[in-house]
Formats: sequence, structure tokens, C-alpha cells
Amino acid sequence: MTGIAYEDLTPGQVIDLGKTEIDRDEMVAFAGRFDPQPFHLDEEAGRNSVLGGLCASGWYTASLWMRAYVDHVLAGSTSQGSPGGNELAWLAPVYPGDVLHFQLEVTGKRLSQSRPNLGLVEITGTADRGSDRVLRFSFVGLFGTRGEG
Amino acid sequence: MTGIAYEDLTPGQVIDLGKTEIDRDEMVAFAGRFDPQPFHLDEEAGRNSVLGGLCASGWYTASLWMRAYVDHVLAGSTSQGSPGGNELAWLAPVYPGDVLHFQLEVTGKRLSQSRPNLGLVEITGTADRGSDRVLRFSFVGLFGTRGEG
Repeated sequence: MTGIAYEDLTPGQVIDLGKTEIDRDEMVAFAGRFDPQPFHLDEEAGRNSVLGGLCASGWYTASLWMRAYVDHVLAGSTSQGSPGGNELAWLAPVYPGDVLHFQLEVTGKRLSQSRPNLGLVEITGTADRGSDRVLRFSFVGLFGTRGEG
Repeated sequence: MTGIAYEDLTPGQVIDLGKTEIDRDEMVAFAGRFDPQPFHLDEEAGRNSVLGGLCASGWYTASLWMRAYVDHVLAGSTSQGSPGGNELAWLAPVYPGDVLHFQLEVTGKRLSQSRPNLGLVEITGTADRGSDRVLRFSFVGLFGTRGEG
């Protein structure tokens, strides 16, 4: 439980969200339910695509980033969800066994005009495989202020 | 199997992706694995949040849109994945039992400079609950041309 509130997030701040290894079975099961394109389900179809091999649905990679964000930042925080973002970039294919390093950077913040006990925090989330960035996602997180309890 | 190729997608075109009802059990299970925030897991926590009730992870709603997109457009198409998008907006909370109407509109297209047998198609995906839009997502889809086989 992080106890993080709006006041604890500062532009320029970088937060490490740990590393996650891509589990092949879960990756393929996710694709089977939500994104059953051949290159997300089958080794040979992946090799025959521009993606170069069996690879993760981008929604799976983003969802894994989200879990790390909950574990490291949102759990026990004043988070009130998100209205969305203005960039979701799948920069390179993600393969089974890849180890992704998740981080976020706070890029801006402001209090809500209509709800003074709520703040909007601009965040860019990233996933890196070694020195290769594979995911970048910029969004707004809503956080309650500590002041108003 | 739609057999859709780059040539079949035209700016202005709207494609119906059908309707999906939000299953409470799957919605909560998805959140438990990928987005375990209290308002995605628990009725009372949802009521006590600005979201107004137990509601879906935005990643679940987006993943359901993706599945409808695969079923109605990508299956058997020349799709080669997506480099991402420039907007992912969760416009309103989505609750168990909601029936979402998924659609897409083609907003632009051009051939790849580096790979002439590949095209970039700009797409805006939407989910509507009745007259309320709950999701909007703008992204680029990569499609092979039929000409180059």
C-alpha cells in the first residue's frame, strides 16, 4: 500500500515499476480471448509476418504495465482512475521470455477546476527490453489530494 | 474470414463491429490480474469512488473492442499489426451488464514509403452504450496490399 496522493507526484519524477518476464502461456491465452490474430497465437504465423515471430498482443503488454503500476503506485493510493491518454505506442514486438522493465515519469500536474480535492497527473509509462523501448503510453491519472481527505 | 486488404479500406468508411455485453465475472477477473484497483473489484469501493460503482478496467473495455475488431475485420485479412495510436479515451465508466456497441471509422490511409506492399490505415474505434460514447481510440493499422500478394 503506497499511500500516494496527488501531493506526492512531482513533474520530472521517475518511478521504477520493476521487471516482468513474458509468460508464453498467459500471453497466448490473452490473445486467444482478446486478440486472436495468427501472429499472436502461432509460432510459424509469427515468423511469416513482419513481426518476426510469435509475439504478444499490444493490449497484453499494456495490461502487464498497468499491473506493475497498480502494484508500485496505485495500491492504497488516492487514485480515482483515468480519463485516458494521448499516445499508446507499440514500438517493437514483444516475444515470450522477454524481460520488460517498466517505469513511469510524471510529466505534469494540475488541480481539477471543478473538483478542488482532485488532481490530474500527466504520466508517461514505458517498457524497455534491455536498451530497446517496446512500449510508451502517455495518459492522465486522477488522484485525490491528501488535504481534503 | 474477411479477406480484407489495404485496398478495401477507404477514408470515411464506417464498419459495425457488433454489440458485446459486459460480463461481470470476466470483468472482475481481468481486473484481478491486470488492474486490481478497488473500484474494479468491489461494489462498495466502486460506489465510494468518483466512478460511481463497480466498473471495468479501461484495458478490459479496450480489449473487448479489439476482439470485436478481429472478428469483424482482421480475421483472414492482410493485417500486420499496429504501431499504436495517438488517442485512447475512456470517456465514461463501464458497468457489468452494459451492452456496448463497437464501431470503427477509417480516417486516412497511405502506402508505406519503405515497404510498398504495406499500407498504413488510420482508424478511430468507438464503443457506445446507447447514446453515450464510453471509449474512443485512434490508431494506425498496418495492412498488406492485395496487389503484391
